[in-house]
Amino acid sequence: DHPNIVMGHGSGGKLSAELIDKIFVQRFRNPILDRMDDQAVLEIGGMRLAFTTDSFVVTPLFFPGGDIGHLAVNGTVNDLAMCGARPLYLSAAFILEEGLPTQDLARVVESMRDAANAANIQLVTGDTKVVNRGKGDKVFITTTGIGIVDRPTEMSADRAQPGDKVILSGFIGDHGITILSQREHLEFESDLKSDCAPLHSLVEAMLNEAEANGNIKGIRCMRDPTRGGVATVLNEIARKSHVGMRLHESSIPVRESVRGACEVLGLDPLYVANEGKLLAVVAPQIADQLIVRMRKHPLGTESQIIGEITGQPRDMVLMKTSIGGTRVVDVLFGEQMPRIC
Amino acid sequence: DHPNIVMGHGSGGKLSAELIDKIFVQRFRNPILDRMDDQAVLEIGGMRLAFTTDSFVVTPLFFPGGDIGHLAVNGTVNDLAMCGARPLYLSAAFILEEGLPTQDLARVVESMRDAANAANIQLVTGDTKVVNRGKGDKVFITTTGIGIVDRPTEMSADRAQPGDKVILSGFIGDHGITILSQREHLEFESDLKSDCAPLHSLVEAMLNEAEANGNIKGIRCMRDPTRGGVATVLNEIARKSHVGMRLHESSIPVRESVRGACEVLGLDPLYVANEGKLLAVVAPQIADQLIVRMRKHPLGTESQIIGEITGQPRDMVLMKTSIGGTRVVDVLFGEQMPRIC
Ligand SMILES: Nc1ncnc2c1ncn2[C@@H]1O[C@H](COP(=O)(O)OP(=O)(O)OP(=O)(O)O)[C@@H](O)[C@H]1O
Ligand SMILES: Nc1ncnc2c1ncn2[C@@H]1O[C@H](COP(=O)(O)OP(=O)(O)OP(=O)(O)O)[C@@H](O)[C@H]1O
Ligand SMILES: [Mg+2]
Ligand SMILES: [Mg+2]
Ligand SMILES: [Mg+2]
Ligand SMILES: [Mg+2]
Ligand SMILES: [Mg+2]
Ligand SMILES: [Mg+2]
Repeated sequence: DHPNIVMGHGSGGKLSAELIDKIFVQRFRNPILDRMDDQAVLEIGGMRLAFTTDSFVVTPLFFPGGDIGHLAVNGTVNDLAMCGARPLYLSAAFILEEGLPTQDLARVVESMRDAANAANIQLVTGDTKVVNRGKGDKVFITTTGIGIVDRPTEMSADRAQPGDKVILSGFIGDHGITILSQREHLEFESDLKSDCAPLHSLVEAMLNEAEANGNIKGIRCMRDPTRGGVATVLNEIARKSHVGMRLHESSIPVRESVRGACEVLGLDPLYVANEGKLLAVVAPQIADQLIVRMRKHPLGTESQIIGEITGQPRDMVLMKTSIGGTRVVDVLFGEQMPRIC
Repeated sequence: DHPNIVMGHGSGGKLSAELIDKIFVQRFRNPILDRMDDQAVLEIGGMRLAFTTDSFVVTPLFFPGGDIGHLAVNGTVNDLAMCGARPLYLSAAFILEEGLPTQDLARVVESMRDAANAANIQLVTGDTKVVNRGKGDKVFITTTGIGIVDRPTEMSADRAQPGDKVILSGFIGDHGITILSQREHLEFESDLKSDCAPLHSLVEAMLNEAEANGNIKGIRCMRDPTRGGVATVLNEIARKSHVGMRLHESSIPVRESVRGACEVLGLDPLYVANEGKLLAVVAPQIADQLIVRMRKHPLGTESQIIGEITGQPRDMVLMKTSIGGTRVVDVLFGEQMPRIC
């Protein structure tokens, strides 16, 4: 009902979801796409391959904790990892704006190389287009990844069950607040940096732990809470699984600096983007062991059980607040969300 | 040696090749990328999978014979087909400019759906980002494809041998001249349209023919002569294979309308982009049979042997002109090339 595309269509909120559904999914419709997980899982010749794509359009290109190159590699590595896939191969397509300093491009490419090496993924094919000045924004990068799912995992957003626990791997909002601070030249966040990181080895540790407990299917689903933040991803899972969810605000790790910035900016950290965090819904039998294992991993030291799946009320996320009340954690429309990509 | 990116870096000519080599390939370096074919061929679990990506940034979005959606699907289908792969799965990432009419987007997506159906490829995953007005150009689409190479083909640009024949599947320059005419509001090409088309079934027919002749390895290499045109692709093959090439101008099909437009615009049709043509270097023993088979296919009715591979002079393409002389068909720097993408 929007005759024209608005910024909110890219926010990761309700407007994004509506656009994706109405314009894209309804036309492309097929059983693999319809799952709407962070990646497609393809059965080819008896193997399960994960396949995922993301465009990166972040401003500024360079920011504390990373740059568009790190993001472009790690973002795709993470969407592969979220189904338990081992990242294998990457493609990268560049849209360069006329006038981009060649040195900036080289710096971005070096970050990509380092990130690819760190994640043990090989960049095997690419593309390079140039657009006229004013028809692009320095550099846009689209990465597409292939991974292999070589364990009997069964992860999908429709598998959460009442009694399951919700796990979060660490502090939220670091990436979004870092980008916003840079963009708005806000000074209060001098020591804050993006959490951009590849999550595949944290996921591997979790799968190992679940397997050691004889319960690999106890990991029901994983998501990296990027654009729409933790709140959006949890709402998606609640709806897809047709369950309720109850969070405990006091167990959700938010840095003081992020909390402060959110207050100043009028934002809720639950809706702010992350680039190196994961949410998992897991069977209660393995939740504590997973937390122990995750905390031993450098990217999971602050891992927490932040809530649980309930039977009622379905399709909703409720949160027990720090001061003892209960509130609905809804999906936002899009316009109210911080624009960080 | 360019401190900033210039339009020529996206032309498909020498400047493009230098940028790709110096900035990207030298950093990402690995044996699969280093082949520099139109697609990577991956060995996973005993299977050979083709993997390729392209961004599409064409202006205008809609043009005679197609639109950006057709291009985005067929371009990637063709890069898969050029190694003999059967197209299987596609991803599509969209970068939308704020203000884009939603109806235009829907029209593009419908074209993509139709093109995907026609090529029997399934779109299984995607991404949607929105950039501020003036930071993009209506819509950019990056498609990435996976295909399966299920025959014992061995196609690569380094396999051309003296004595091999060079095959072209039809008229050249239609796409590039159509786009230029639209962009510059030139009127002389009222009946010309883009040749945008999926080539996988033409390739399949060629592979069947080669196989029937017991010589599937006789198809040495295939390329779709997109941005840099026929001249650029043939130079790449000559260099990669370290051979010479001799073309016969009189056998290269160029429509009168394209020839006329090229004269007016000061262009050589050999450097103008195509989106539904293929070049193949093939063993002399199967060249004639291939031509017969190709001409039976709707996309190959004007197929021709346009030249042959020679031993000397190496790394060069020479052309016997219609008036009886011989000229060098060189690679262009980039600035001299028509900008059509
Ligand atoms: N243009 C599109 N066409 C088809 N499917 C799409 C499109 N855009 C998104 N999707 C699908 O919608 C779902 C959500 O995509 P989204 O990009 O929000 O996930 P993500 O990549 O995990 O998040 P982010 O892009 O913030 O990293 C995925 O299943 C994706 O395949
Ligand atoms: N940014 C990049 N990083 C790594 N490799 C790249 C990059 N850009 C292009 N390449 C590689 O360079 C080669 C030529 O790419 P190019 O895009 O010209 O081929 P194409 O897709 O067949 O042509 P077109 O893009 O005109 O359709 C390919 O092997 C491709 O993988
Ligand atoms: Mg993602
Ligand atoms: Mg390309
Ligand atoms: Mg994700
Ligand atoms: Mg291509
Ligand atoms: Mg995405
Ligand atoms: Mg090609």
